Amino acid sequence: MSIRFGIIGFGFMGHEHLSMLQEFDGIDVVAICDNAPGLLDDVPDGIKKYVDANDLVKDPDVDVVLIVANNNQHLKLVKAAAEAKKDIICEKPLALSAAELEEMEKVVKENGVKFTVHQQRRFDPDFRTIKQVFDDGSLGDIYTVQTKLYGFNGNMHDWHVYPEQGGGMLYDWGVHLIDQMLWMIPGKITSVFADVRNVINEKVDDYFKILLRFESGITAEIELGTYFLKDPNSENKWFERHWFMGGNKGTAYVDGFDPIGKKCTTSQLLTNVGGQRTMTAAGPTRSFGPPPEGRIVVEPIEAAKTNHRMYFENYVKAYRGEEEFLVQIPQVKRVLAVMDAARESARTMKSVDFE
Amino acid sequence: MSIRFGIIGFGFMGHEHLSMLQEFDGIDVVAICDNAPGLLDDVPDGIKKYVDANDLVKDPDVDVVLIVANNNQHLKLVKAAAEAKKDIICEKPLALSAAELEEMEKVVKENGVKFTVHQQRRFDPDFRTIKQVFDDGSLGDIYTVQTKLYGFNGNMHDWHVYPEQGGGMLYDWGVHLIDQMLWMIPGKITSVFADVRNVINEKVDDYFKILLRFESGITAEIELGTYFLKDPNSENKWFERHWFMGGNKGTAYVDGFDPIGKKCTTSQLLTNVGGQRTMTAAGPTRSFGPPPEGRIVVEPIEAAKTNHRMYFENYVKAYRGEEEFLVQIPQVKRVLAVMDAARESARTMKSVDFE
Repeated sequence: MSIRFGIIGFGFMGHEHLSMLQEFDGIDVVAICDNAPGLLDDVPDGIKKYVDANDLVKDPDVDVVLIVANNNQHLKLVKAAAEAKKDIICEKPLALSAAELEEMEKVVKENGVKFTVHQQRRFDPDFRTIKQVFDDGSLGDIYTVQTKLYGFNGNMHDWHVYPEQGGGMLYDWGVHLIDQMLWMIPGKITSVFADVRNVINEKVDDYFKILLRFESGITAEIELGTYFLKDPNSENKWFERHWFMGGNKGTAYVDGFDPIGKKCTTSQLLTNVGGQRTMTAAGPTRSFGPPPEGRIVVEPIEAAKTNHRMYFENYVKAYRGEEEFLVQIPQVKRVLAVMDAARESARTMKSVDFE
Repeated sequence: MSIRFGIIGFGFMGHEHLSMLQEFDGIDVVAICDNAPGLLDDVPDGIKKYVDANDLVKDPDVDVVLIVANNNQHLKLVKAAAEAKKDIICEKPLALSAAELEEMEKVVKENGVKFTVHQQRRFDPDFRTIKQVFDDGSLGDIYTVQTKLYGFNGNMHDWHVYPEQGGGMLYDWGVHLIDQMLWMIPGKITSVFADVRNVINEKVDDYFKILLRFESGITAEIELGTYFLKDPNSENKWFERHWFMGGNKGTAYVDGFDPIGKKCTTSQLLTNVGGQRTMTAAGPTRSFGPPPEGRIVVEPIEAAKTNHRMYFENYVKAYRGEEEFLVQIPQVKRVLAVMDAARESARTMKSVDFE
């Protein structure tokens, strides 16, 4: 028997969920709610429509409530669904702070419902491609893992321009980029240093750089900008999405959402160049110059074949008790704590001790 | 009348200096010293040879001592030259710490000699190309300035592999990259956060990332790695030298020592995309996707026509009192203080308050 979903919030992401789940074996969407009634006009026949979320959560035909409302509605809706004894999937960011999540956990625990978060970007193929290299250990001791996401639009869209609704890029994409790092890199984080800016948007952040220093010795770096421009006629059409990973046995990078990955090593390291040098436009250098033919050995990295449907494949199995939910609440709480620390670091211009 | 130079240290950089100064109007190299006598074999006829620096500094035909010895010799040689009442140019890094520089300043002041540092990379054309854009204000409010230098050799060369001789990349190149930032960006630095590593080299650093948060709101980032590899057949042949500068009116970047610079703006910013989105391999996104034709406007940046001879052109004029020495000791001290702070931050994994 299929799991019966009720979706709360039928804007952009609500529609995205419906179109995926309509084709999905094991899940039936039976009800949809939005308090802007016009948004319900295109709800397909056979799916119940609600304007009040409190009605949807009480619908006995609904097993799981999928919360896709604006970020500042999550707490209220999680409480309502849990109190109605419904299992819950909430969109990211689950909560606006680690403290808000603790309130949710309390009511979820009291009511004994299943609770997880739609962090579907754990299945992004670009991320999984670099994660394969991280996991296989072929780069030796890794010292830096960098993830970058750049756009040209400048402004945020829809309600994401309003801080009071949980707008801004740190909540929208930061939560994914941090989650990917934390899920990939094991061990404690010693400190967080971050820069968070409103470059184009007046009221919400649209640029951030976050450095996470792990106890293991790895430094993770996350940079996102909505106004980072590059010549679209250059080879990397625009900056888009990039991963870089450096170890003492090589480096790897993955470019694009549709990932092209390469792993590079050297056929030999410098032993001692002595007086040899390269003359550059900026004077002589012995350390930096073009590599001799064949010195850098390039190997393609096979792109991961993951996709976002896999999030719900896991959900269905976990719901039936066949495996664990991929996204665990303590992991989500840790990501929110990193976001809190990043904001504090940006405000104080100091690093924040962590864990 | 030409200024008469005595060069102490005739390794790689000593030879570089001689070959430039032999052709240089206003400076005559009259004496060269190295305590490894074999290195003096190719000193041209007509230039006196010394094995003991104490003899060179006492030579009455020498006006200016150019110190090009290993970094750990600078303090001793600056003292000897100053006490012999010689004017001094010292190679970078002038001192191994801000404290060591204070010792130098004391003896220089007591003896009333001229004292400056060979920070010739203030004339690097890549740096001057991005600096033009910084200075002309066309990017609006700048929030990030990033400089990157990557190589593939892994190991350092010569005595730079020995920590006790002042080896490592932070001393060798860090001092230039920091100096360029500090000379370009006005105002106080609030905090320093840094990662400094020995990735390939056992005893000295060969990777660093330094973030400087300026009171003005700019964050400067400096990253260097001797083992950062990229496919040499991609458009950017290898990572080499890069600048990136982001402001709220556009971005600029400069690639390569022989600089190719571009400034990018957009013909319009997003107003509100609503439900529009781009389908990527990693799912839908409204914020990130390829730009429509014509949205990003690219303008070449004219490359600066500077070179390292200009360092000595300034020196000669300043020596004659016609202008100021470009490199002032308080500036050098500030760079050393940033380096000290970067090492401390890397060790403690915390940011260091500055100024």
